[in-house]
Amino acid sequence: MRIGILTGGGDCSGLNAVIRAVTKHLIISERAEVFGFENGFLGLIENRYRKLDYLSVSGILAQGGTILGTHNKANPLKYFGADNADVSDVVLKNYNDLKLDGLVVIGGDGTMSISFALQQKGINIIGVPKTIDNDLMQTDRTFGFDTAVGVATDAVDRLQTTGQSHDRVMILETMGRYAGWIALEASIAGGADIVLIPEIPYDIEVVAEVCRNRAKKQRFTIIVVAEGAAPKDGKMTVRETIDDSPDPLRLGGVANVIRYELEQRIDSEIRVTVLGHIQRGGTPTPFDRILATRYGSFAADVVKKKEWGVMVALQNNELVTVPLESVANKTKTVPLDSDLIRTAKSVGTSFGS
Amino acid sequence: MRIGILTGGGDCSGLNAVIRAVTKHLIISERAEVFGFENGFLGLIENRYRKLDYLSVSGILAQGGTILGTHNKANPLKYFGADNADVSDVVLKNYNDLKLDGLVVIGGDGTMSISFALQQKGINIIGVPKTIDNDLMQTDRTFGFDTAVGVATDAVDRLQTTGQSHDRVMILETMGRYAGWIALEASIAGGADIVLIPEIPYDIEVVAEVCRNRAKKQRFTIIVVAEGAAPKDGKMTVRETIDDSPDPLRLGGVANVIRYELEQRIDSEIRVTVLGHIQRGGTPTPFDRILATRYGSFAADVVKKKEWGVMVALQNNELVTVPLESVANKTKTVPLDSDLIRTAKSVGTSFGS
Amino acid sequence: MRIGILTGGGDCSGLNAVIRAVTKHLIISERAEVFGFENGFLGLIENRYRKLDYLSVSGILAQGGTILGTHNKANPLKYFGADNADVSDVVLKNYNDLKLDGLVVIGGDGTMSISFALQQKGINIIGVPKTIDNDLMQTDRTFGFDTAVGVATDAVDRLQTTGQSHDRVMILETMGRYAGWIALEASIAGGADIVLIPEIPYDIEVVAEVCRNRAKKQRFTIIVVAEGAAPKDGKMTVRETIDDSPDPLRLGGVANVIRYELEQRIDSEIRVTVLGHIQRGGTPTPFDRILATRYGSFAADVVKKKEWGVMVALQNNELVTVPLESVANKTKTVPLDSDLIRTAKSVGTSFGS
Amino acid sequence: MRIGILTGGGDCSGLNAVIRAVTKHLIISERAEVFGFENGFLGLIENRYRKLDYLSVSGILAQGGTILGTHNKANPLKYFGADNADVSDVVLKNYNDLKLDGLVVIGGDGTMSISFALQQKGINIIGVPKTIDNDLMQTDRTFGFDTAVGVATDAVDRLQTTGQSHDRVMILETMGRYAGWIALEASIAGGADIVLIPEIPYDIEVVAEVCRNRAKKQRFTIIVVAEGAAPKDGKMTVRETIDDSPDPLRLGGVANVIRYELEQRIDSEIRVTVLGHIQRGGTPTPFDRILATRYGSFAADVVKKKEWGVMVALQNNELVTVPLESVANKTKTVPLDSDLIRTAKSVGTSFGS
Repeated sequence: MRIGILTGGGDCSGLNAVIRAVTKHLIISERAEVFGFENGFLGLIENRYRKLDYLSVSGILAQGGTILGTHNKANPLKYFGADNADVSDVVLKNYNDLKLDGLVVIGGDGTMSISFALQQKGINIIGVPKTIDNDLMQTDRTFGFDTAVGVATDAVDRLQTTGQSHDRVMILETMGRYAGWIALEASIAGGADIVLIPEIPYDIEVVAEVCRNRAKKQRFTIIVVAEGAAPKDGKMTVRETIDDSPDPLRLGGVANVIRYELEQRIDSEIRVTVLGHIQRGGTPTPFDRILATRYGSFAADVVKKKEWGVMVALQNNELVTVPLESVANKTKTVPLDSDLIRTAKSVGTSFGS
Repeated sequence: MRIGILTGGGDCSGLNAVIRAVTKHLIISERAEVFGFENGFLGLIENRYRKLDYLSVSGILAQGGTILGTHNKANPLKYFGADNADVSDVVLKNYNDLKLDGLVVIGGDGTMSISFALQQKGINIIGVPKTIDNDLMQTDRTFGFDTAVGVATDAVDRLQTTGQSHDRVMILETMGRYAGWIALEASIAGGADIVLIPEIPYDIEVVAEVCRNRAKKQRFTIIVVAEGAAPKDGKMTVRETIDDSPDPLRLGGVANVIRYELEQRIDSEIRVTVLGHIQRGGTPTPFDRILATRYGSFAADVVKKKEWGVMVALQNNELVTVPLESVANKTKTVPLDSDLIRTAKSVGTSFGS
Repeated sequence: MRIGILTGGGDCSGLNAVIRAVTKHLIISERAEVFGFENGFLGLIENRYRKLDYLSVSGILAQGGTILGTHNKANPLKYFGADNADVSDVVLKNYNDLKLDGLVVIGGDGTMSISFALQQKGINIIGVPKTIDNDLMQTDRTFGFDTAVGVATDAVDRLQTTGQSHDRVMILETMGRYAGWIALEASIAGGADIVLIPEIPYDIEVVAEVCRNRAKKQRFTIIVVAEGAAPKDGKMTVRETIDDSPDPLRLGGVANVIRYELEQRIDSEIRVTVLGHIQRGGTPTPFDRILATRYGSFAADVVKKKEWGVMVALQNNELVTVPLESVANKTKTVPLDSDLIRTAKSVGTSFGS
Repeated sequence: MRIGILTGGGDCSGLNAVIRAVTKHLIISERAEVFGFENGFLGLIENRYRKLDYLSVSGILAQGGTILGTHNKANPLKYFGADNADVSDVVLKNYNDLKLDGLVVIGGDGTMSISFALQQKGINIIGVPKTIDNDLMQTDRTFGFDTAVGVATDAVDRLQTTGQSHDRVMILETMGRYAGWIALEASIAGGADIVLIPEIPYDIEVVAEVCRNRAKKQRFTIIVVAEGAAPKDGKMTVRETIDDSPDPLRLGGVANVIRYELEQRIDSEIRVTVLGHIQRGGTPTPFDRILATRYGSFAADVVKKKEWGVMVALQNNELVTVPLESVANKTKTVPLDSDLIRTAKSVGTSFGS
């Protein structure tokens, strides 16, 4: 049995744990030969790969990032290296030349969309879901998310003590362009006072009012804001989306915009932290390592059954398979009636609306 | 509305998050008066309590332990302070004198068993499940467990680097007297080579053989052993169970026994770490804080509905209620056909059997 | 013996450890009465204080922030609450009314400057040095700094794995307005490729060149920049200094400016993290707790000797006293010939110049 | 220039940072060829080595252990592989065959003793001090120690919350066979109530009395004990020393002995944690990474100056060189009049004597 493996899209903690589990499981139970493509689909296009043996995946369980590298723009259907042409025939040739029986692709909704197209072309694919934002359809929880929430919560914890000592307003910007999972969970875990997420447009007047009320009693306020949060009457201020219309006020991202707006409205000193990519990196939490190992080991089971064209998913604590196309290009946002939102509100957290 | 709250049994990380969520939720939505009994049922027997207002539960979310204190032997049905007499009438009187509408009891299977009996006596009780060992029936996951796995995994990580540098056998003893959840999850998360749990009696010859084989190639071996693990032909060596028949060899616990047995069988140097109660203490992980807050907030919802005589539980990511008596004095061990055991084996972990 | 204590200026990790050590030591050895003033000199002006007994300082050793609160603008010599008038007579009266024998003041160079003036007025003062930036004269190392370096290094570690996975340029902005200690130590500890500090003006062309060279081989680059770093031909871009002339490009701080400049010069994707006040908050490292406890305990020794008008300091691992005026309004920047700079360069780190 | 490098004795966090700094510095400034011997002196005896280039030491800064492996019994002067014969001629031949200009040896007092002998034989050696216990003469502080104190302090922190919740006596056993530095610093950093170190023989009656007094008021007691602590009238109970006279009571180490003794004297429940080798492993703290990098970079400077036969050392924050023989087979214990002991006592910590 000869199996390829690659990691696509943005990186997140736990990718190496999946690579290790797939490889070890297939070597132990099938004496399979496993080949790792480098830099996501780019390696598949450029035929860059290396053989993964047992030793080469030992000791990577706790490492952040991906030993294979990834690439978040390499798409065989619109390859930037060939004037956005479709090079899936090249990919298919490389796949066949290497005599692969199948390919394990670890990635997000974009990667699954490409995988579905390649599957149609005749490549046997099994997808493993990956998104730091936890916003992938069909699966309850993705690895890397617990680690990201951990980094963000640690930041909230630290802001609590310094905010309290100074009666300040502290703003923390987390990842989450389209979904507010990280911001919301970090808010509950850290006991933030205000959380702003893309799903609930905020009213800056309400935010200011909460700060003013707290200034009278508790005296300090912790605001957690997802990078994709937007005001009721405005548009998203994610850094990447404004490159084309460079409103320089927004160069610093949404947290700096909110700081600017609040400075017009309240007396307290305001300080900003922008976590950025430290949420993606570093050693995965034990939870994420276990989840990633379960995903990888189960994906190897599915490989052994030759059940191609599916993505593995976690549903009600069980690992299952779902069609690749069922997750392609969809986003799982936080439901407005979710238990998490209800919980946050019940302990006094404001959503600024 | 006047509600009492107490924490019973052994402590674990996240108890304060529950106390905070119950109290804040009831004060915010019901302007309830909340009273915290000290040292578990002991406070209820001795009528020691204090009023919990909003401020008194602010800032405790991330604190380990319980601000109320607990007691793991205080049982109103067999009170050690009264020659093991039943003092539940005293408890009922204290409850009535304080004009309580209900009582939130956070604890394990023993605590729920007592709670069921008190409920029969006429005290309105809602239980919140607590066990560091994750071995409580009816609920998928309990707070404190993720924190304990975190402490144990950090230890495995550290033993990996030092074991590797020296070609040694490193033994780590974790909690888990009747169930091996902590040892098993820490083994998967840390990439241990051997894991010994109460559910699968070990054969010391098999353990020695794995060590010898690894000494030839990888050269070092990490063994994680739950305190309640036992050999195939032997009996449990948990420290507490041998007070009566003090075989001094066992004073150090199962890890030291295994060390002693392995020293007769292999050449490698062997070193032992016994984590003990550091698994119980310290700030809860974000996962546990969120889970504990959800439990507490939901328990307050159930209080508001006056649905007494139940325990809140997590089933398939949903919070539900189950009868108090359905969890009393039962233990949820690791199923032999569980996905976790399968996953561990698939990446090469031995169970020593 | 009756002693007052207060914390002035910005907060940092370890303040509570000092408060605890001063209080416990004086109570144990002198049965002293200790009074904590709230919010720095503001409490001394407004006569807001509380008595600190043994219990009230138990359990605060590991807490971030300051249980007394602080204030970074309250100056009795130019009191903002009285049109910048000198209210030191009020302070002296409050001090005398409370029959204090002396006052322990924990703070930075500004606080020591005020303390020197108050000492001249007749208040017996002993200073304890505090600065997260480690930039205080006369003392080798201040508590809070090790914690800040820890937070910044953890961020570098995380950026290493994510940067590597994507061949990106990652920029991390740390504290350090006038001195680059935090950025420099975090760079050495984390293995950053470029570090930009206020002491060495950077040349953006050199920075870009290093990034381009690394893109060919190692493929990713980690840049750590102190908030006060400035280009050779430019001026400082610290957020606070530009409120008056709001160049909106600079709202996001120096890291965003460098990002903007590099985007004109290199092809790699660039990502920014701005740590901000999370460097100030949270539980102190063991190193900082020990250092803070030593400072506090030694300050109590000096109180007992009634050696007023001095600041305690660490010199060559010994605790000594120095005149208050010797540290007032001075800054200890990183010497260009320091061992740290030499070490960083020797392992290949560029200073962008 | 051709330089060898090896790590001897027990491992500790920071070894890889030294290897990296020596190698990078010599390659950058001298285009030197660096050879790493495997498993300490064993590699030098068996001529097992590999070339270390720039890439091979990239990314190891934050890794625990040593990429070269170590061995704590391989002594060329009394080689266990040759009936304890002197094989230093073999070592000299291997050294000469590889045309080495010098050898950097990282190790403790035993390793320095061997190095001194080899230097006499004509091998150019520069030593770098290493000891997790911080008990090496001539140098103020060694890398790995801060990391070990960090692990031990984290354990004390966790025991504080669980001890408090249950009114228990918690005993933590740390490393430190001959010197109590780790136990002492962890006690100050964690706020332990009792600390027992080899330098101050303890009286079990005093220990019991402190526990009893605390049981009345604070109700719980944290005891930190170095593995080499011994009672006034007794002998050391370190595990390794009793292999020959196996008093089974002592199989579990000194913490279990103290538990046993206290159980005869007090009523409180007692729990034991034995940290063992987790103090040696894992990623070094930023402090240790910086210190190790400074040591390594300075050792390369000394190599460039061909100043052989010395060990680098830290004295009053300056890196200096001292004769190899000045550290051989000596131990730096905690001075009874040290500032640390005075500090611990001043905040109420008992030494059980």
